[in-house]
Amino acid sequence: MAGKVFFSVSMSLDGFSAPESMEGIRATPEQREQDPRLERWMAQWMELQAWIFPQRFFRENLNLGEGGEEGRDNDIARETFERTGASVMGMRMFDLGERAWPEEAPFHTPVFVVTHQQRVPWERPGGTTFHFVNDGIHSALRQARQVAGDRDVRIAGGSETILAHLNAGLVDEFSIALSPVLFGAGTRLFDGVDASRVALEPVRSEPSSRVTHLTYAVHPR
Amino acid sequence: MAGKVFFSVSMSLDGFSAPESMEGIRATPEQREQDPRLERWMAQWMELQAWIFPQRFFRENLNLGEGGEEGRDNDIARETFERTGASVMGMRMFDLGERAWPEEAPFHTPVFVVTHQQRVPWERPGGTTFHFVNDGIHSALRQARQVAGDRDVRIAGGSETILAHLNAGLVDEFSIALSPVLFGAGTRLFDGVDASRVALEPVRSEPSSRVTHLTYAVHPR
Repeated sequence: MAGKVFFSVSMSLDGFSAPESMEGIRATPEQREQDPRLERWMAQWMELQAWIFPQRFFRENLNLGEGGEEGRDNDIARETFERTGASVMGMRMFDLGERAWPEEAPFHTPVFVVTHQQRVPWERPGGTTFHFVNDGIHSALRQARQVAGDRDVRIAGGSETILAHLNAGLVDEFSIALSPVLFGAGTRLFDGVDASRVALEPVRSEPSSRVTHLTYAVHPR
Repeated sequence: MAGKVFFSVSMSLDGFSAPESMEGIRATPEQREQDPRLERWMAQWMELQAWIFPQRFFRENLNLGEGGEEGRDNDIARETFERTGASVMGMRMFDLGERAWPEEAPFHTPVFVVTHQQRVPWERPGGTTFHFVNDGIHSALRQARQVAGDRDVRIAGGSETILAHLNAGLVDEFSIALSPVLFGAGTRLFDGVDASRVALEPVRSEPSSRVTHLTYAVHPR
């Protein structure tokens, strides 16, 4: 039996899944000192994701060290990882991640990167292999489904890639960790959603001490 | 002891508290037939507010008839009403309400309408009196606090009036009924929020079968 296609992201209460555009923002210490936008970007990003950083699973998976919280937030982070048999992501997310992930990238499954760039598969220690797909999201998703088997396919991000799948009717379900923060500006998760085609059915709403975990099934209208 | 200043609204998952602007949309049956935008506006509004229409308290308070649901959604609707000793609203909300509320307007307390229009107080059966305040939100809120006594002051809406109070640091707490719907376009509740000044503290997150009720305390940054 084929798994589901889902996404799972953190979102600010006012609907942003990332601070202002990251175009042109670079992350070396020197660049950071030169560009005050990066300081602000990082501060907002940390607030948005504040719930996940202390979690034991997150720390282990990114090799950040032992220990960490082990409550419901941790279970949810772990469950999201364990259900995922393959991921699809956009090139911008890959570009950022390539600079930020540890050598042992945190996916431990095949990842299909939708891009115009031609590049041979990039195999990382720990089981993550990045495949670069040049013929669009349907092709990337088909390949991801094949390797995922019974497990689910995660549309990892960014929000443009998530929205492309949502509007194309390719998403079965999604989860949002709703963070207690207002951004005012940035990248809106649902910007450009085709509301005339996407209907939501509430599946689960689970408060933790840090965020509210919301899960919806997606149906065509 | 003085009460709190709060607002309580329904919001779509993508952050909208109302469908597209209501400017120029009129609500008589003839106008409705002539303007397809109104049909769409009403359909979206009904989806956003779907959780409250079946509630016993809501039906009683708007004289829509006997009966209705009596679960947690109903309790929350009733509690929101009972804590409110006075309301503040913008002129656009009043204009719409004036055409839509029953003769016995559903506030049953003084309501302070912020407007440039000069008008004598308008007393309705059932205890609602609309006072028209020409010297700004601080004055309206001061008057509302005075008559509310120990009870709370509700910033009723619309979202522009709510945001003016939020950005001015005048809101202590707010509640959102997060509806399982995406709008894609419309009036964003937090559009223009001064995120550098407003910090949120989660107070309560309570799922019902229809929505998730979220409550946050507001602190200055």
